[in-house]
Amino acid sequence: MATTDFAAWVQACQARIESVLADALPSSHVAPQRLHDAMRYAVLGGGKRVRPLLAFAAGEVTAADPARVEHAAAAVELIHAYSLVHDDMPAMDDDALRRGKPTVHVEFDEATALLVGDALQSLAFDLLASHTLADDAVTQLKMVQLLAQAAGSRGMAGGQAIDLASVGKPLDLTELEFMHIHKTGALIRAAVLLGAQCGRASEHALGALDHYAKCIGLAFQVVDDVLDAEASTATLGKTAGKDAAHNKPTYVSLLGAARARELAQELRADAHAALDTLGAPAVRLRQLADFVVERTF
Amino acid sequence: MATTDFAAWVQACQARIESVLADALPSSHVAPQRLHDAMRYAVLGGGKRVRPLLAFAAGEVTAADPARVEHAAAAVELIHAYSLVHDDMPAMDDDALRRGKPTVHVEFDEATALLVGDALQSLAFDLLASHTLADDAVTQLKMVQLLAQAAGSRGMAGGQAIDLASVGKPLDLTELEFMHIHKTGALIRAAVLLGAQCGRASEHALGALDHYAKCIGLAFQVVDDVLDAEASTATLGKTAGKDAAHNKPTYVSLLGAARARELAQELRADAHAALDTLGAPAVRLRQLADFVVERTF
Repeated sequence: MATTDFAAWVQACQARIESVLADALPSSHVAPQRLHDAMRYAVLGGGKRVRPLLAFAAGEVTAADPARVEHAAAAVELIHAYSLVHDDMPAMDDDALRRGKPTVHVEFDEATALLVGDALQSLAFDLLASHTLADDAVTQLKMVQLLAQAAGSRGMAGGQAIDLASVGKPLDLTELEFMHIHKTGALIRAAVLLGAQCGRASEHALGALDHYAKCIGLAFQVVDDVLDAEASTATLGKTAGKDAAHNKPTYVSLLGAARARELAQELRADAHAALDTLGAPAVRLRQLADFVVERTF
Repeated sequence: MATTDFAAWVQACQARIESVLADALPSSHVAPQRLHDAMRYAVLGGGKRVRPLLAFAAGEVTAADPARVEHAAAAVELIHAYSLVHDDMPAMDDDALRRGKPTVHVEFDEATALLVGDALQSLAFDLLASHTLADDAVTQLKMVQLLAQAAGSRGMAGGQAIDLASVGKPLDLTELEFMHIHKTGALIRAAVLLGAQCGRASEHALGALDHYAKCIGLAFQVVDDVLDAEASTATLGKTAGKDAAHNKPTYVSLLGAARARELAQELRADAHAALDTLGAPAVRLRQLADFVVERTF
């Protein structure tokens, strides 16, 4: 597949997920209007939509109907969006800029940001339960369970807690990896597996995708750390250099930038290898591994 | 049924839900330990468990297996518990006392309280999806949808937003009712309907229970307002008089205490009437309507 073709596929998926999210979010005209306005502000019109892209790409491996995958992808993106809103709040990272715009608690207020995050999480599960996403309802219930566990205290929220506890502490590489497997890895894994489960996913395929997702999740974080250390705030659309400013351990602070970049390449190779037995339908996942590692924003 | 019998039933349900919640919450020994410790602190060892009691009582109407109802009841209670943790935070009600103990952000810290609420919401959906709760998975997916919508921006979280926006504003009775139908009513309705859906619930029964739940939800709030205005902090286990202190409109401020108490009695009579066609199995729901209206804490 040519690069231009991949770029077009990414754009098509991004447009589709934007449209699904816009439909799923309550209108700003529905009461409570300010809350709904803030929810739309938090979710729409920004972001790379990496998790939805992974869900769509994994759905191609299992020949899933994209009309199913789009709701699973949107549910995962809503969880991601809620986590950003809460993560940016003063009690957490206290960040004023996200995706080039003021963060929700800055644009609205703290109480609204708190409720936006809470309501986005509910909406994610609403979306996952309200559409037919799998051939049978038992599988779909397992998908609800998967997302709930990925978001919860032994997944993303747990990773945030470990992250908070790690500020100023000398984490080693194992501890850093443990944090990221929870903080970003769990939801990336959920995106891949949920996309696949919208189609007919064999145990073998799910195993391979699980390994792919683990590599991609870590690669994503390693690259994030490199970009945070090296890129400018304008390029990132969020405050750059904040990890160092907060004295947070990162792959760059532990390994140096050169070795961190090497590690990202190794994880990309591992991710590609995990896809070997899945053949041609895995091409988008392969390209996404490249995209995640080569991105500059 | 005698009153003593009702008291024993309440205690048995409360013990059962405490045990289910204790099992569902991750151990304090599992990482991240501080988060899990705070989640257990937020949920266990307190509360009247009104929503679980309603779920168990509604399950009796549809001959539901209590081994199913207990998980639905626990899921609703986890949503309720998360909402209290976030509601008590400085950005919202800024309250230091809950169930006679320091609130989560006081006992731990704000970031932990934020994550506790987030993770409790995820756990609620995990619980609802991880156990067989209905005769078929399609019904169970509808139960997930029901809880998600009850918790979300057109349910409980939306009610909180309306509540925040109403501080210092002259709401009329219709607006106050609109707020409470969202803020507390939606989750009480979910408790009743989810309990019933664990058994074989006819459309007729669900309709009657829906009406019952609406009356009980409002009655609960009216009584809350009366208690907040009249009881002491020591009796309530939370800060008394805070509605007046925050200049929040309440049933007492709009109607006066005497008329508010009358309204609670009328709602109880309506709730009882809604149960008329459901016969003897509705006895616990009838007693719970009495309990909600007559409680002094």
